[in-house]
Amino acid sequence: MKKFINRVDSVLHESLSGFSHCHQDIVALDADYRFVRRAHIVPGKVALISGGGSGHEPLHAGFVGHGMLDAACPGQVFTSPTPDQMIAAAEAVDTGRGALFIVKNYEGDVMNFSMAAEMLGGQGATLITDDDVAVQRSTYSTGRRGVAGTMIVEKILGAAAERGDTLADLQTLGVHVNGVTRSMGVALTSCTVPAVGRPTFELAENEMEMGVGIHGEPGRRRVALTSADEIAAEIVLAIVDDLAAKAGREVLLLVNGFGGTPMLELYLMYDAANRQLAKHGLKASRGLVGNYVTSLEMAGCSITVTLLDNGILPLWDAPVHTAALRWGM
Amino acid sequence: MKKFINRVDSVLHESLSGFSHCHQDIVALDADYRFVRRAHIVPGKVALISGGGSGHEPLHAGFVGHGMLDAACPGQVFTSPTPDQMIAAAEAVDTGRGALFIVKNYEGDVMNFSMAAEMLGGQGATLITDDDVAVQRSTYSTGRRGVAGTMIVEKILGAAAERGDTLADLQTLGVHVNGVTRSMGVALTSCTVPAVGRPTFELAENEMEMGVGIHGEPGRRRVALTSADEIAAEIVLAIVDDLAAKAGREVLLLVNGFGGTPMLELYLMYDAANRQLAKHGLKASRGLVGNYVTSLEMAGCSITVTLLDNGILPLWDAPVHTAALRWGM
Repeated sequence: MKKFINRVDSVLHESLSGFSHCHQDIVALDADYRFVRRAHIVPGKVALISGGGSGHEPLHAGFVGHGMLDAACPGQVFTSPTPDQMIAAAEAVDTGRGALFIVKNYEGDVMNFSMAAEMLGGQGATLITDDDVAVQRSTYSTGRRGVAGTMIVEKILGAAAERGDTLADLQTLGVHVNGVTRSMGVALTSCTVPAVGRPTFELAENEMEMGVGIHGEPGRRRVALTSADEIAAEIVLAIVDDLAAKAGREVLLLVNGFGGTPMLELYLMYDAANRQLAKHGLKASRGLVGNYVTSLEMAGCSITVTLLDNGILPLWDAPVHTAALRWGM
Repeated sequence: MKKFINRVDSVLHESLSGFSHCHQDIVALDADYRFVRRAHIVPGKVALISGGGSGHEPLHAGFVGHGMLDAACPGQVFTSPTPDQMIAAAEAVDTGRGALFIVKNYEGDVMNFSMAAEMLGGQGATLITDDDVAVQRSTYSTGRRGVAGTMIVEKILGAAAERGDTLADLQTLGVHVNGVTRSMGVALTSCTVPAVGRPTFELAENEMEMGVGIHGEPGRRRVALTSADEIAAEIVLAIVDDLAAKAGREVLLLVNGFGGTPMLELYLMYDAANRQLAKHGLKASRGLVGNYVTSLEMAGCSITVTLLDNGILPLWDAPVHTAALRWGM
């Protein structure tokens, strides 16, 4: 295992320390490393809190800031944070209008965030994301996995919370956005969890894992590596079919790198996915390319499509100021 | 070689096509793929143009936009663009106050950009960056290499051009910023150039290349992988010594990923570098972490330090709106 680390058991704390020093104008780190919160708390809005295992950076701490999250709770690598982290985060950022936990659909995360929401009583609620069309259930999930579409839900709900939406309104909107968002990924190499020290899975030199999860979980099948166009065609077809997207719709297209694939290839995949969308009569009027929801150093990418409508579009375009996503301010 | 590609000879054009579609609010792609320029040309300012071999994305096209570059000329992977690309770019974006070419110090780039500047007569000039302290000369450079510090020069000159500085003023400022900026990198794995199809160099499972160049060129020495703290100590010492930086100075600290190292580790390296700077009495009052000046999928990172002063600081903080760097607007 070749990584920039000092000790395996201090990786997360040192990384959070670096993150919070680097972005001290945007975020503050809890003294006990339980959560990252906005440097400046805004009263009068519903608090949006997310979190999950680390190793997916910049998700979620990189999305804390104006127009997106109020706090994020990092677990150890690929391990759920604990309910006490979530409650501490809610206590730090809820200014009286309640806290919504945005949770990727993995059993550990769902259990712990649900417990935290219950302990907060009427002040807490959860929203589950499950945008991955690859498989119906997986290693760590009952039902579909929550993957890169989660950042789109976080962005859109973040803008809605900023304009003053209630907890109930945000839940309804979140269910809608998650419902018009689909993703699917493909891996060319494995990742290596620092505490494990060896690759999570093995792929031969000519193989890819189609439909891979963001922890390296198995997808639909392991097959020979094909061209970018063929990969994009299969993923876009799976997404468009599942969305039952009608020709003529405008969409948001996200090509998300898993951490080890260069931008040169990610933009090439965007081009390929964009051409596939056009074949289905869909127009990518908004786009995003980058390493946003990663799996440590895994080579590969996912494609996410969100159907745009008059409700979602201005919320996507609204100003955002986080470590990993910034525009309009 | 496992990459998302269709054909080796169309990688660059397809990637540029995806980039320009995704960021069509910011950039426009020349019909002959010779350059990427701002979508909206601003008259009355000096045009800043950069470029170089591809494979370092988001450098340089990702830095085209308000507050930074006016155009970027992409060569094939790790290959200089040609003078006709540079002249076409200058003709597209120079509105009468001249064009400054920002050029990383590699022989091919320097020769071609100098030729283009000469052909533009008094309307063209070049500024060379050579911030890499690792080696005094290298595979493709006479003198030090231009590496990640180049993006800092581009950001600061971009802000100065936006406020109306003349071509001569910008050259002077550029020499100053380059002169107070130093970088050094380390690689844990090689990159693979698509047209070559095999790794540029080989490292054993326990080795790192200290002082590596951004094309995988040899650095100072190949040694056993050590801790993040030891790596940061060696690099920061080399930089601080070379800068002759006095205790008490404020600095900008950039930890730049080469493409294959996860953000979890890059932020950990930021933390390590920040602690080393503090030992030398230097305060990182501005910071940046990310994959900005990459070497395809190489695992590794570089550390860059710029001494801040009252001239540079407001230009660094000034608004910027590009695909890869955005704040303040």
